Amino acid sequence: MSEAPHLTFDLETPGVSRGHLVVPGGADSGELSLPIFSLNKGEGPRLLVTGGNHGNELEGPLVARRLIEWLPEAQTCGRVIVLPVLNPLAVQAWSRNTPLDGLNLNRVFPGRGDGSVTERIADAVSRVLLPMADTIFDLHSFGPAWDFPPAATTHPIADRDLMARTVRMAEAFKLPVTLVWEYNDTVGMFDILAQNQGKVFVCTEFGGGTVGADNLAIFEAGVRNALIALGLVEGKAEYPTFLEKKSGQILETRPSDELKSPATGIFEPRCSVLDEVKQGALIGILHPMDSLSAKPIGIRAPGTSIVLAIRSGRHVHVNEEVAIVARPQKI
Amino acid sequence: MSEAPHLTFDLETPGVSRGHLVVPGGADSGELSLPIFSLNKGEGPRLLVTGGNHGNELEGPLVARRLIEWLPEAQTCGRVIVLPVLNPLAVQAWSRNTPLDGLNLNRVFPGRGDGSVTERIADAVSRVLLPMADTIFDLHSFGPAWDFPPAATTHPIADRDLMARTVRMAEAFKLPVTLVWEYNDTVGMFDILAQNQGKVFVCTEFGGGTVGADNLAIFEAGVRNALIALGLVEGKAEYPTFLEKKSGQILETRPSDELKSPATGIFEPRCSVLDEVKQGALIGILHPMDSLSAKPIGIRAPGTSIVLAIRSGRHVHVNEEVAIVARPQKI
Repeated sequence: MSEAPHLTFDLETPGVSRGHLVVPGGADSGELSLPIFSLNKGEGPRLLVTGGNHGNELEGPLVARRLIEWLPEAQTCGRVIVLPVLNPLAVQAWSRNTPLDGLNLNRVFPGRGDGSVTERIADAVSRVLLPMADTIFDLHSFGPAWDFPPAATTHPIADRDLMARTVRMAEAFKLPVTLVWEYNDTVGMFDILAQNQGKVFVCTEFGGGTVGADNLAIFEAGVRNALIALGLVEGKAEYPTFLEKKSGQILETRPSDELKSPATGIFEPRCSVLDEVKQGALIGILHPMDSLSAKPIGIRAPGTSIVLAIRSGRHVHVNEEVAIVARPQKI
Repeated sequence: MSEAPHLTFDLETPGVSRGHLVVPGGADSGELSLPIFSLNKGEGPRLLVTGGNHGNELEGPLVARRLIEWLPEAQTCGRVIVLPVLNPLAVQAWSRNTPLDGLNLNRVFPGRGDGSVTERIADAVSRVLLPMADTIFDLHSFGPAWDFPPAATTHPIADRDLMARTVRMAEAFKLPVTLVWEYNDTVGMFDILAQNQGKVFVCTEFGGGTVGADNLAIFEAGVRNALIALGLVEGKAEYPTFLEKKSGQILETRPSDELKSPATGIFEPRCSVLDEVKQGALIGILHPMDSLSAKPIGIRAPGTSIVLAIRSGRHVHVNEEVAIVARPQKI
């Protein structure tokens, strides 16, 4: 029997609802029930907030949980739907992809109702939730192996009006970085599906490394700022402080801004995120492991830029990504 | 043929030598050659510095590499042997234990010449290097899943004179924390073997989370401070700054200071390392994943203490460790 994906409650119910998004079972697994929160205050913006798209990025689910706690007191109009964990199988396994079928949820949208479990989750979200929202915040982060500043990001969008509205929405988070990210591997992303339907979609990248109390407070402030900008809650935006740097710079990065390891060995980071570097500046060092006579290899900035992401010191293979640089957006 | 473990050079050679510690092959793998550095300036302290005991703690190997760069200019007497990577198989796999035999190198000392590869590495270090040193620094860290302050640690030692000398050596790193760590699972540790031979053994715990440029500079300063205290190099100790906190507090922690998760779910850290907390203070929150109606569970400080280690926000199982608290050492 192929039951359709559905909610265990009616989104039209005024006020707070707590229930589940039911993802039907299939050949590889039984039915999944994803906990979901809805607050319907009638007319106004319709926002969908999702976290846990990738299972080793837990900043999103934690900030989504905090949002659920204060939203009932704060929301003055409109509708907000919060789904803290899109992919519970990946979260439980602390894994980017779903262990059961090996798929990356953020590359299988819009999904398939008769597909494997990851495709069925995407199908349920695409069919049941996406039509109910005009704006989507999908809360990602950069994972444990990288340092990355708190950022609200978008990919370039062909529709110039939608692009302008999306960048404005991303800026409203008032995070240290607003990022326009040109990216090749975009087929099947949640972002693309939503943008093709004319919706404003902001993908946050809530830092990297350990998920700690100080950074969670920054990310929570970012989401509150965005809700204020949407008019869903009242208040004044706060600019969070991060590494004593000014919040709110708009950066852009392209595939050619990714720095790769020149050899296999141990990568040593020699700079920190948001460092401003000149052409030729030392970004990191690759230490070959075979011999202490072999010279370490410097990895240098290809041009004047800002360090956006830096890999944690660890063993890497030749051509593995070790840093991403960015530049202020050209106006 | 059972060749004995050996060095490819003579430690008695004056000045700098670079070569390998050869770990003979066995049933499970061929011979390993571990790159090793020696600087022999004659009479004086005899120090052995090791890193990469656990393969997902790369701070040690990176600081060991830096030490090798400046030691030839700086060392004025004595002998220093540096082995940056004890377990290359684990480092290449970014794994605490050796993938080939599943063993934790730091639980199989003194090792066995006819054992599996991890036991053969321990045997080579125990037989070839340990007799050549009076003081050993084994450079560990807390790994990517935890926040932890830069610390020099020892376990309690029955021999009171050796204990006093070991704590004095650990303090000489001038790191934010000097830690006396009471620990149950100590059979087969490198520490115990060396201490049973009357040697001073300091195990550093160089923080946790991502391995970044700022923290590496703190760890490097710690090792330089310790070498100054030993009289191997000249200079003045520097107290590194960490989280704007004073360096050099001596803490102690016991097995009962480990806080466990009360249930399975997503752990949210609510404090930071080195926070001073009173009894009942909120250390973290456990969020059950099944339903948004289920109440989050607070994890609280058992007594007035200092937060020593805090788990990164992620999915944890019931009874998994989520924090370690500590107290100033009683004098």
